[in-house]
Amino acid sequence: MASTWEQVAAAKQASLAESIPSAFRIPHHRCPPESQLDVTTWPKDSGWFTSKELQITESTASHILQSIASKAWSAEEVTVAFCKRAAAAHQLTNCLSDAFFDEAVQQAKALDEHLERTGQVLGPLHGLPISLKDNFNIKGKDSTIGFTALVNQPAEYNATLVDILERLGAVRFCKTNVPTAMMIAESVNNTFGRTVNPLNRKLTSGGSSGGESALIAFGGSPLGVGTDIGGSLRIPAACVGIFTLRPSAGRFPTQRCRSGLAGQEAVQSVNGPMGRTLEDIILYSKSIVDAQPWKMDPKMLPLQWRVVEPPKKLKLAVLWNDGICLPTPPVTRALKETAEKLKEAGHDIVEWDPKLHQTALDVLARMFVADGGKTVEALLGITGEPYRPEMQMYADAQELGVYGMWRLHLERSELQREYLEQWMSIEGLDGILAPTTPYASVPHGDFKYVGYTGVYNVVDYSAVSFPCGVSVDKALDQHSSDYKAQSTFCEAAHNSYDAGLLHGMPVSLQLVAQRLEEEKVLAMTETVLRAIQ
Amino acid sequence: MASTWEQVAAAKQASLAESIPSAFRIPHHRCPPESQLDVTTWPKDSGWFTSKELQITESTASHILQSIASKAWSAEEVTVAFCKRAAAAHQLTNCLSDAFFDEAVQQAKALDEHLERTGQVLGPLHGLPISLKDNFNIKGKDSTIGFTALVNQPAEYNATLVDILERLGAVRFCKTNVPTAMMIAESVNNTFGRTVNPLNRKLTSGGSSGGESALIAFGGSPLGVGTDIGGSLRIPAACVGIFTLRPSAGRFPTQRCRSGLAGQEAVQSVNGPMGRTLEDIILYSKSIVDAQPWKMDPKMLPLQWRVVEPPKKLKLAVLWNDGICLPTPPVTRALKETAEKLKEAGHDIVEWDPKLHQTALDVLARMFVADGGKTVEALLGITGEPYRPEMQMYADAQELGVYGMWRLHLERSELQREYLEQWMSIEGLDGILAPTTPYASVPHGDFKYVGYTGVYNVVDYSAVSFPCGVSVDKALDQHSSDYKAQSTFCEAAHNSYDAGLLHGMPVSLQLVAQRLEEEKVLAMTETVLRAIQ
Repeated sequence: MASTWEQVAAAKQASLAESIPSAFRIPHHRCPPESQLDVTTWPKDSGWFTSKELQITESTASHILQSIASKAWSAEEVTVAFCKRAAAAHQLTNCLSDAFFDEAVQQAKALDEHLERTGQVLGPLHGLPISLKDNFNIKGKDSTIGFTALVNQPAEYNATLVDILERLGAVRFCKTNVPTAMMIAESVNNTFGRTVNPLNRKLTSGGSSGGESALIAFGGSPLGVGTDIGGSLRIPAACVGIFTLRPSAGRFPTQRCRSGLAGQEAVQSVNGPMGRTLEDIILYSKSIVDAQPWKMDPKMLPLQWRVVEPPKKLKLAVLWNDGICLPTPPVTRALKETAEKLKEAGHDIVEWDPKLHQTALDVLARMFVADGGKTVEALLGITGEPYRPEMQMYADAQELGVYGMWRLHLERSELQREYLEQWMSIEGLDGILAPTTPYASVPHGDFKYVGYTGVYNVVDYSAVSFPCGVSVDKALDQHSSDYKAQSTFCEAAHNSYDAGLLHGMPVSLQLVAQRLEEEKVLAMTETVLRAIQ
Repeated sequence: MASTWEQVAAAKQASLAESIPSAFRIPHHRCPPESQLDVTTWPKDSGWFTSKELQITESTASHILQSIASKAWSAEEVTVAFCKRAAAAHQLTNCLSDAFFDEAVQQAKALDEHLERTGQVLGPLHGLPISLKDNFNIKGKDSTIGFTALVNQPAEYNATLVDILERLGAVRFCKTNVPTAMMIAESVNNTFGRTVNPLNRKLTSGGSSGGESALIAFGGSPLGVGTDIGGSLRIPAACVGIFTLRPSAGRFPTQRCRSGLAGQEAVQSVNGPMGRTLEDIILYSKSIVDAQPWKMDPKMLPLQWRVVEPPKKLKLAVLWNDGICLPTPPVTRALKETAEKLKEAGHDIVEWDPKLHQTALDVLARMFVADGGKTVEALLGITGEPYRPEMQMYADAQELGVYGMWRLHLERSELQREYLEQWMSIEGLDGILAPTTPYASVPHGDFKYVGYTGVYNVVDYSAVSFPCGVSVDKALDQHSSDYKAQSTFCEAAHNSYDAGLLHGMPVSLQLVAQRLEEEKVLAMTETVLRAIQ
């Protein structure tokens, strides 16, 4: 007898829970109470981790790699520590979609043996555990991207990036949760349910790479890989206050990944690293490009990693608001304080006019549903799984037809031309400083506006989201009395805003460079961090 | 009263003829007889050109640029000479779609004054007349791409490439004929009629950049720019025995050009130079990339021109035939002789298995008509212009729908992955040596098979078509008695083949490198030319 989608989901969740070794299941007496919102302090407070486990899991990726290469730590003990902490993260935030800790430990042991035998590391990521968003195919493992229909459909091959990471010495140990089809800005689906923010479990960790962001913010992974088609790296990174790079298409291989909208190309999904330090993001990015992914993935560009020194003086245009949705008070304050510090440090600050943003977002929304939502509908239909309420636009969509699609391509290309023209009209402009999202984070279900990130998917610019050192302060970040909504998005964002609930949450900003300026945007972020520290 | 399409076409042809200054109209008594098939000898034989005009118009672009920069020649006299010879080319082959010789001479004079005043050339193409395929928009001028509906619809802006060429000092003087929508491999349309091959007017000069190829082969332009989505640079270059580079998408700006299938992106149209020497192709290519087109056209890649020395030893895979259409006898002989000479010169020659070619071509054909032919139909419908018989596939096409299009993208991406995998499986492979087309050229109407070029549009590889020094020899190039057709395409190609008619026509081959290896494929062609000379 065929299972219902609810049965499939329940069985999948149970098998995931069982895949966590009993040694890594949090003893009942150590569990934090449900009412504890910030669980990031729990690993230290609980007494369940050894001091070495804490030391390892609170190190940067760069430090971990050095410690393994110098044999101060074994890859095995590093892997075990992260598996344990990832297991805890999952039990407290529901952030994983798969766990394969035994295999990871075997892989780590083999790396230790390799180092012992040859005296050489296998590659620049030797022994580093790297977590992967659910959609990265790993042979023999599911990539459900939240659909019950894709449960128990193990991949027949590795994503190209997975092969590269293995060659570079990275250890894979888990996959992380996403929203259905990866097309919601929170990480919730009918198969695994909802991932919550470890900094405040009443809030979202964002999406679609929100399993990653929760895991990394909790300390359960030193570095993860997510994807971004409308903000899916930057939004979750911002919701938990970690770093990410959204690269332009063509730098990091996307081949053989599961897509939520398979074959959709009008706006390209990209993937990139998420981590706790900028240094780690740079380390990963250089390692992947140095692996010459264009020899495996024909969509990759033969563009070597270019060493860019942090510029001494920047010219940045600030996007104060996009004319559609005002940032909530802490985000506006973060932008002001950051711009002020940059000015004080001698950088040139001008303004960015968001005159093209509404058009960009209209185009983006139409591209996502151009197939009339049939791709999503087909996947839901297999098990009779219902649309999640966040995906109503897919349920309502009409098939555009290829003739209409070609016209939409022309609109998008014209927008891209105009955006570049506007950029080039500001002489010497290095980048745009913008909110990553209008929110610090939001209560579950309230993440409605992705315009600040989505616009840069349409033009395919390189962008870093970084925590800017500002946190929500309920004393400072109350609504201004002259607030006037710019749109219904704006109204919803500000109605949902609760300074008391958000108090203490980190605020992130986005630094945007031109298309294919990954090295430059990372170097510029270093300059910005120096100015604001 | 509205005009019929026939009236529009007749008026457009008349106005084009009238735009040629009377001084450049061939005096009746000097006209070659209709029966003269090869008219490339006529400029010398006719006595209508001064020896200086002949000297100028038979020089390479590189030589012309040096002569202008050193003030041996003025830009004005160079421009006048080419305008005159282009005018003759048009009268003998019907190769132009627009002529603006007066403006060209004014532009040349201004360049001469600039050089006189500043002692500097304006840019690396200072004073060089460059002809442009009809679809390059020039403000105030038509880009009909063969549709009567687009007659008297002057462009409101320049193509980005046109702006760049002007900045580099090139002189624009004419636009060249194309087939309807640029989607036929011969240059024939209902507006301007048919362009013929100056080497043999019973044969086609190819398409869709066949106005260019006829003009350049006649000596009416030192360098031209065409476009290629299925072979439209390489096929016409091969039909007249000149050089061209089909670049990968992202090197030469395509922005603001007229497209035959506007908004179609599943396979990208690219543009590139056509000229009489490899040196000129390199000169143009480097000049365009050095102009940093990515600062104007957001689809361009920030990939500097990379200096590549001609490799001393090559490893090339020969595509003897693609399993669908055997090359005609002179092309097979040219491939054999070339491979033999390369071996003698110490290069490594292996074979290319065309196992993926049929799939690639199926995918290509479906992408062209995915809109159900509506784009073409809409343009024809405005004036009631009929489909040309070569375009029956557009008349018959069914709208695929975006859902189907996304699936087609997946098929194409998988094919791209497999093609790259096959390439990488041959260790150290530098390139593929292939026929450009199965034909040397063909009688009008007989160009049916574009598979040898089209496959490299699907995978977006860089390719040079070059005359390999072999010409059709009716004594050597008879059908082999064991010929067996591989398909109906093959049968048609071989039925149409007439060694007597083709006797003396040059044969071209195609050298293919990986995606975005423009510099390498040009350098490799230099190596090949050394080996076969």
